Amino acid sequence: MSFTVYLSGEIHTDWRDQIIQGAAARGLAVRFTSAVTDHDASDAAGDGLGAESVPFWRDHKSAKVNAIRTKTLIEQADLVVVRFGDKYKQWNAAFDAGFCAALNKPYITLHAEDIVHPLKEVDAAALAWAQTTEQVVEILAYVLRD
Amino acid sequence: MSFTVYLSGEIHTDWRDQIIQGAAARGLAVRFTSAVTDHDASDAAGDGLGAESVPFWRDHKSAKVNAIRTKTLIEQADLVVVRFGDKYKQWNAAFDAGFCAALNKPYITLHAEDIVHPLKEVDAAALAWAQTTEQVVEILAYVLRD
Amino acid sequence: MSFTVYLSGEIHTDWRDQIIQGAAARGLAVRFTSAVTDHDASDAAGDGLGAESVPFWRDHKSAKVNAIRTKTLIEQADLVVVRFGDKYKQWNAAFDAGFCAALNKPYITLHAEDIVHPLKEVDAAALAWAQTTEQVVEILAYVLRD
Amino acid sequence: MSFTVYLSGEIHTDWRDQIIQGAAARGLAVRFTSAVTDHDASDAAGDGLGAESVPFWRDHKSAKVNAIRTKTLIEQADLVVVRFGDKYKQWNAAFDAGFCAALNKPYITLHAEDIVHPLKEVDAAALAWAQTTEQVVEILAYVLRD
Amino acid sequence: MSFTVYLSGEIHTDWRDQIIQGAAARGLAVRFTSAVTDHDASDAAGDGLGAESVPFWRDHKSAKVNAIRTKTLIEQADLVVVRFGDKYKQWNAAFDAGFCAALNKPYITLHAEDIVHPLKEVDAAALAWAQTTEQVVEILAYVLRD
Amino acid sequence: MSFTVYLSGEIHTDWRDQIIQGAAARGLAVRFTSAVTDHDASDAAGDGLGAESVPFWRDHKSAKVNAIRTKTLIEQADLVVVRFGDKYKQWNAAFDAGFCAALNKPYITLHAEDIVHPLKEVDAAALAWAQTTEQVVEILAYVLRD
Amino acid sequence: MSFTVYLSGEIHTDWRDQIIQGAAARGLAVRFTSAVTDHDASDAAGDGLGAESVPFWRDHKSAKVNAIRTKTLIEQADLVVVRFGDKYKQWNAAFDAGFCAALNKPYITLHAEDIVHPLKEVDAAALAWAQTTEQVVEILAYVLRD
Amino acid sequence: MSFTVYLSGEIHTDWRDQIIQGAAARGLAVRFTSAVTDHDASDAAGDGLGAESVPFWRDHKSAKVNAIRTKTLIEQADLVVVRFGDKYKQWNAAFDAGFCAALNKPYITLHAEDIVHPLKEVDAAALAWAQTTEQVVEILAYVLRD
Repeated sequence: MSFTVYLSGEIHTDWRDQIIQGAAARGLAVRFTSAVTDHDASDAAGDGLGAESVPFWRDHKSAKVNAIRTKTLIEQADLVVVRFGDKYKQWNAAFDAGFCAALNKPYITLHAEDIVHPLKEVDAAALAWAQTTEQVVEILAYVLRD
Repeated sequence: MSFTVYLSGEIHTDWRDQIIQGAAARGLAVRFTSAVTDHDASDAAGDGLGAESVPFWRDHKSAKVNAIRTKTLIEQADLVVVRFGDKYKQWNAAFDAGFCAALNKPYITLHAEDIVHPLKEVDAAALAWAQTTEQVVEILAYVLRD
Repeated sequence: MSFTVYLSGEIHTDWRDQIIQGAAARGLAVRFTSAVTDHDASDAAGDGLGAESVPFWRDHKSAKVNAIRTKTLIEQADLVVVRFGDKYKQWNAAFDAGFCAALNKPYITLHAEDIVHPLKEVDAAALAWAQTTEQVVEILAYVLRD
Repeated sequence: MSFTVYLSGEIHTDWRDQIIQGAAARGLAVRFTSAVTDHDASDAAGDGLGAESVPFWRDHKSAKVNAIRTKTLIEQADLVVVRFGDKYKQWNAAFDAGFCAALNKPYITLHAEDIVHPLKEVDAAALAWAQTTEQVVEILAYVLRD
Repeated sequence: MSFTVYLSGEIHTDWRDQIIQGAAARGLAVRFTSAVTDHDASDAAGDGLGAESVPFWRDHKSAKVNAIRTKTLIEQADLVVVRFGDKYKQWNAAFDAGFCAALNKPYITLHAEDIVHPLKEVDAAALAWAQTTEQVVEILAYVLRD
Repeated sequence: MSFTVYLSGEIHTDWRDQIIQGAAARGLAVRFTSAVTDHDASDAAGDGLGAESVPFWRDHKSAKVNAIRTKTLIEQADLVVVRFGDKYKQWNAAFDAGFCAALNKPYITLHAEDIVHPLKEVDAAALAWAQTTEQVVEILAYVLRD
Repeated sequence: MSFTVYLSGEIHTDWRDQIIQGAAARGLAVRFTSAVTDHDASDAAGDGLGAESVPFWRDHKSAKVNAIRTKTLIEQADLVVVRFGDKYKQWNAAFDAGFCAALNKPYITLHAEDIVHPLKEVDAAALAWAQTTEQVVEILAYVLRD
Repeated sequence: MSFTVYLSGEIHTDWRDQIIQGAAARGLAVRFTSAVTDHDASDAAGDGLGAESVPFWRDHKSAKVNAIRTKTLIEQADLVVVRFGDKYKQWNAAFDAGFCAALNKPYITLHAEDIVHPLKEVDAAALAWAQTTEQVVEILAYVLRD
């Protein structure tokens, strides 16, 4: 049994690698996908379409170019993992969770206990809340059992 | 012509009232809906179903009871206005925006310019970004012209 | 604010009346719907289409005639309450819950604590688990607040 | 011609093996999937996410982790076989049937004659009612004819 | 409780009137809809758009103009009754039934016993097979019980 | 019987008025809707959200504000009439037609014979091609017959 | 480029083979699927589930077992060819056409000119009407061009 | 990572080849699809189904045969590129864009700056506006990064 898992959210820590390596170490048949996680490249995704002097429009163009990738990958995923770290606003992660909820697509959250309260709506529609990447790998190992 | 508009997000300022009164002042045929905006009541929405000693589960129950209302109202709305203020995480607002995006339901954002960058994914799928409640009323007035 | 609530499940106790009267007592704007709850009439729903000597087909015809009503009412409902009592198999109640889950339609369950374990899949996709009809009315009152 | 068949329901008898071996014996190109059928593992599916003192929440977490697998596999299946045995409540089986009905996904039931009456709603939306695993294999062989 | 019922099929007998009058006699809250049942007008529905010398195109234009009405009314209906008489090909009736089946919209058939075999696929996806208009009214009366 | 009809396309001639008056003259129960047809107001629809120095972004904002209205009205319509005149590019009209086609929503086109060839894909998915507003009224009168 | 084409309708002539061989002769990358076309086997499809004394139920069971195959194959097809011959009622063919129409799935019809009138609703929603199997192969060859 | 990209619109310049070769030069895993771009063959797509004396019907038949291919390929695509050149009406390109918008399928436009204003509705629902084929290739290279 195999699964495609989209990894959404925080791009400043190595949580994706931990999950990918953990799954590999257990021989799980998972294809992982995600947004482009190179922050500078992501912010500049739309620059090739012409320079913008207004920051809003530069962001707008880049966010839409990124959406070409993320929207498609989320729709193709069997499961989405949404990670919230301790920095930044991370509204895009919550946005992805809402997107999944409306599509009735399974997602799980990965975040520390101290942000349980502000994430309650996001967690309410999730199929699991994990606090560590090991737990995510554990869930994948269980879900993909023969 | 009439519209149903769901007001999502920030509950600590009077932006909802400003929009509702602004629309009333112009005689617009808009029915406004929203989540229960009494913060304490909202946090306690699930308490009647039995006390919980673990905070996560208390939040979980309340968030789900709130979802009975919000999910239905969002689906019934013709337009959703998603407000981001300058306090708190407001992940539920971004979650609602993602929910709308997946349903192909029109939404507009309402937030100050200094958070344009972290909201770029949310704004990218929106049909408008307003900075003031007057602008939101202006859009409604335009959209509902005879 | 008003809601349409479909009451699914057990037909041998007066739980529906308790909820309907509780909602009326609080002046809630709820329209309640349900299957035909007269057990004998329900079992005989298809008899008018011709007698059947094989029990399976008599049941089959009646179940389908009942589905004309129940399927439509469930799809029209804003919320479904699924009741499990302490008698009978009540597979139709679990069937309705699964139907709601696939449609992404909010439902809550109403059952005693001693059947929590066998109902775990049904509760997992529900937005609330109530143990008493008072709790259901309480949720409705909260959800329908102005 | 090939098919993916999800086997839902009873986990205490060897009906899945009978169907799988019957299909293999006839050389049918069927990929069978199902929930994790190890009862203890299934009940403990969420334990890795942290211990729970309240039984409801332990069940809740496990049921949701199981749903990551079952929901996806049901949606990927061409046909679902829903088995009802003579023990336990088996509401999850009826829930799966309702889920299929709402998705307009073909399913067949497998159960003894003595529970025809309580299963009438579940059977009414099914494309076949089989009493033996041999009959299920027979249907598969017919459906997959070149 | 009220229902919208679309009456599809045969236009050469008075079965529609029988059902409409039968429902009226019992005081049922049913709104009946149907295609334009004036045969000549229906065949000429597209003539106003310009004359056609090739019969296929005249039929084509009229059938499409008729579809503006029928498609919308079928989608708005809670229940569709599909009537097959003993004359003509009546492929449009079977087409409507297939349309309903794909939409998961409840429909019942109304036809004599001697055409059970050629209608088996159409009946298989129906929620009831009636042989008389009285039976249809009977079903409506049952389904619409308070 | 009543219908909601959305009038899409050309805004420089009085074709909308002709249809509306023609329908009124015949007493048809049609509610007509359309985009804001005041050209200058439409181009300036987004100006209230802040001035733009780059023409693309001014257009972008206005087009999105207009979409709040048009998308919703098209989805609410029972029928869409798409008008192509002899001036301008009118890509928005073709865009609306494609939008309807994907939603399986009935639409008819209204245009002169000399642009039949470039409109062949648009006409191919339409339920009728009318050349005059009288013909559109004629179709409406037919479709709405009692 | 490759396509999956479902061949629906008449089972008493060799039109399927003509199309399959015609496509093979031209080296087209088409996978053809269809219902079980052995008439006796098809009528007996449900017999293995237990004998029925009432003809309606025997037909009912067989039609449903056949639907397990046909529904799935139609949904998987890129194109459906619906054939109407000069014998029998062939309501199942019209039913399949209606099913495709509601799913917005492309289908073409294959029938002689003398039944153009009774098939006008079926042809109105089709993307082509062919009179010979050669024409169908021709369309496939065109559609699958590199 | 791989993508399927449908190239819609203008058929009189070599923009498709430029994109295909540009993607190949960068080793991108993209499968490109498109309508039949041989203009004469496209106009004659329906001729094999019988000659037509009325130009409208010749166009109609051909456009529908072409739709068998284009509709399916658009639905299978992960991304659609819609090209508007400086000649002809190109309503089919705008139609494809509207089709994508309703399906919530990502598309980008490719056109010169001088037609920004008439394309504002089409651009408003697009995820990017490119002015050169190099920019399109650049976007693809970014979107498909490992």
